[in-house]
Amino acid sequence: MLKCQKCGKTYEKFRMLCECGGLLDVLVGFRESFESLLNEKYLDVRRYLNFLPINENFLPKLILPITPTVEKEIENVKVLFKLEYLMPSGSFKDRGSYVTIAKLKEEGIKEISLDSSGNAAISFALFGKAEGIKVHVFIPERTSEGKKRVLKLLGAEVHEIKGLRMDVHWKAREFKGAFYISHWYNPYFLEGTKIAAYEIFEQVGEVDYVLVPTGSGTLFLGLYKGFKELNNFGKVKMPKLIAVQAEGYESLCKRSKRKSKLAEGIAIPEPPRKEQMLKALKETKGFCISVGDREIDKAISDLISMGFLVEPTSAVVFAAFKKLLERDEFEKDSKVLLPLTGSSLKVI
Amino acid sequence: MLKCQKCGKTYEKFRMLCECGGLLDVLVGFRESFESLLNEKYLDVRRYLNFLPINENFLPKLILPITPTVEKEIENVKVLFKLEYLMPSGSFKDRGSYVTIAKLKEEGIKEISLDSSGNAAISFALFGKAEGIKVHVFIPERTSEGKKRVLKLLGAEVHEIKGLRMDVHWKAREFKGAFYISHWYNPYFLEGTKIAAYEIFEQVGEVDYVLVPTGSGTLFLGLYKGFKELNNFGKVKMPKLIAVQAEGYESLCKRSKRKSKLAEGIAIPEPPRKEQMLKALKETKGFCISVGDREIDKAISDLISMGFLVEPTSAVVFAAFKKLLERDEFEKDSKVLLPLTGSSLKVI
Ligand SMILES: [Zn+2]
Ligand SMILES: [Zn+2]
Repeated sequence: MLKCQKCGKTYEKFRMLCECGGLLDVLVGFRESFESLLNEKYLDVRRYLNFLPINENFLPKLILPITPTVEKEIENVKVLFKLEYLMPSGSFKDRGSYVTIAKLKEEGIKEISLDSSGNAAISFALFGKAEGIKVHVFIPERTSEGKKRVLKLLGAEVHEIKGLRMDVHWKAREFKGAFYISHWYNPYFLEGTKIAAYEIFEQVGEVDYVLVPTGSGTLFLGLYKGFKELNNFGKVKMPKLIAVQAEGYESLCKRSKRKSKLAEGIAIPEPPRKEQMLKALKETKGFCISVGDREIDKAISDLISMGFLVEPTSAVVFAAFKKLLERDEFEKDSKVLLPLTGSSLKVI
Repeated sequence: MLKCQKCGKTYEKFRMLCECGGLLDVLVGFRESFESLLNEKYLDVRRYLNFLPINENFLPKLILPITPTVEKEIENVKVLFKLEYLMPSGSFKDRGSYVTIAKLKEEGIKEISLDSSGNAAISFALFGKAEGIKVHVFIPERTSEGKKRVLKLLGAEVHEIKGLRMDVHWKAREFKGAFYISHWYNPYFLEGTKIAAYEIFEQVGEVDYVLVPTGSGTLFLGLYKGFKELNNFGKVKMPKLIAVQAEGYESLCKRSKRKSKLAEGIAIPEPPRKEQMLKALKETKGFCISVGDREIDKAISDLISMGFLVEPTSAVVFAAFKKLLERDEFEKDSKVLLPLTGSSLKVI
């Protein structure tokens, strides 16, 4: 069931926003224990099916792996890199697509439109192709050629839009004849991303800090929700959430004058779920930190040295981690989770 | 322990070939049951550590996922696609590298040389980078620019060789000052690839047919070994192994005059482990089948339509599957495993 954050109205059917314009949340309540809901026979995303509001008859055929978590000791801190970039389309967005596609199938929706700076578009195009759902993708004209090529390869109808990111957004929303599926609003997207928290719990137990690349907040709010549910199950304490943003695109902390060019995946100045994110930061005693291109560039090399082939946006968390390490932010032996969100591998 | 196929001599230390020039096999014997060896607390490659001849203190830091297996019903046959391309470097070769790197670390080897048409090189370069092992890569000059770029990005020393694949091979072997680590001989490589069979067993149980892209035979022989071990544990019957080769590069069936250009990953006319492969085919009542570029090209589109972003070499198994389906090779409801070995995503 979906519930409006603003007026409290509830909906059974899939929709992006409340009639009143308010954001919707998925309400899920678990009556059984974590252990009885966990489906241990599966070694992939289906292990966590009972924590998801989807119907087993409408699962996407493309199955998501459980992404590995690599532990490294860095200056007395236990850093946990979660390899989200090993998803079928090369980014964590597949988690959101997986759940969303299941809902679309359940409701018989065959044509969708969305706006994206890249990874979400590739993810939906891939799942759409696999399920026979027609995908209209609205992207900024400046999107890299590699990303455009893979979208076309995947049979998506690509609409290149001149102008700002917000112009792209409005073009997609106003497009007629398709169900608009922006991950900026889509409450089911967060159900998908929350599963990363369940995996982390099974892989390493409790963590103390979570640094998340934060633009529209799909991973940030998904992880918040996942840890919250695990907390309600009595499994973990809430970790401190740290939103990592790019210079010039801060929405949760002070906006820098200089603009990052590298972190295109989180270059979203006005995320609709901003208030919800600020609440999550406050509740977990977390904060927002911003990084610039020089720091990101250095972090990319550091990550490659460790064997992680990730795109620039993913490197913001390691850049932020190093900044916070210098500030002595982390207690000795604390566990710091860094999800690595997107692959540097693109279709050639 | 390593044992020579030819003279029976055994070795404790890591080496590529016997003094007599014979190929080496890893001898492993399990005294405990499958269940007591399986490490269920892990949801990644470490789940199968007890089936591997490696020391827990020397594990590579980069962890491999358990790759998903996607089931599809095609004309009354249950086709099982195993998504090997979701490995950290984009191919199944990471399985072999993982075990090999563990052995190199155990023996304190810090500099290696190898020849490869691409994926094995990228895999070793990645793991080498992550572990501080210097990697000399010998590749054919015609290797795609994308692959060369990622090798350099990963800090490998790239030696581009003019001439045939065999020339590349000899240059790497003769290179002084580094431990030569060709996956063509390396017995530990097969220990890594055998783990795919363990995963499949846990994911879907017994299978009837396994179609494998087969050049040097690293995946073919690894899967053979894995299923053989599972068979010895009393867990599965032996599946029928079907080696899929590319036109013009057949080593296990009649050589075609026409030469495939698309299946570069298996364009290996004289694999050293050929006799061993023929034996495995005979034992499992399997056979070899060869496919051409037109069939491969069609199979690539088919796979993309299903949401699998794989490189041309990977598509040979689906091309072969369709040929065999037309020939009515498979009984109704039989389970046919198709490992999808390499990603079409490359660093851009
Ligand atoms: Zn409302
Ligand atoms: Zn010998």
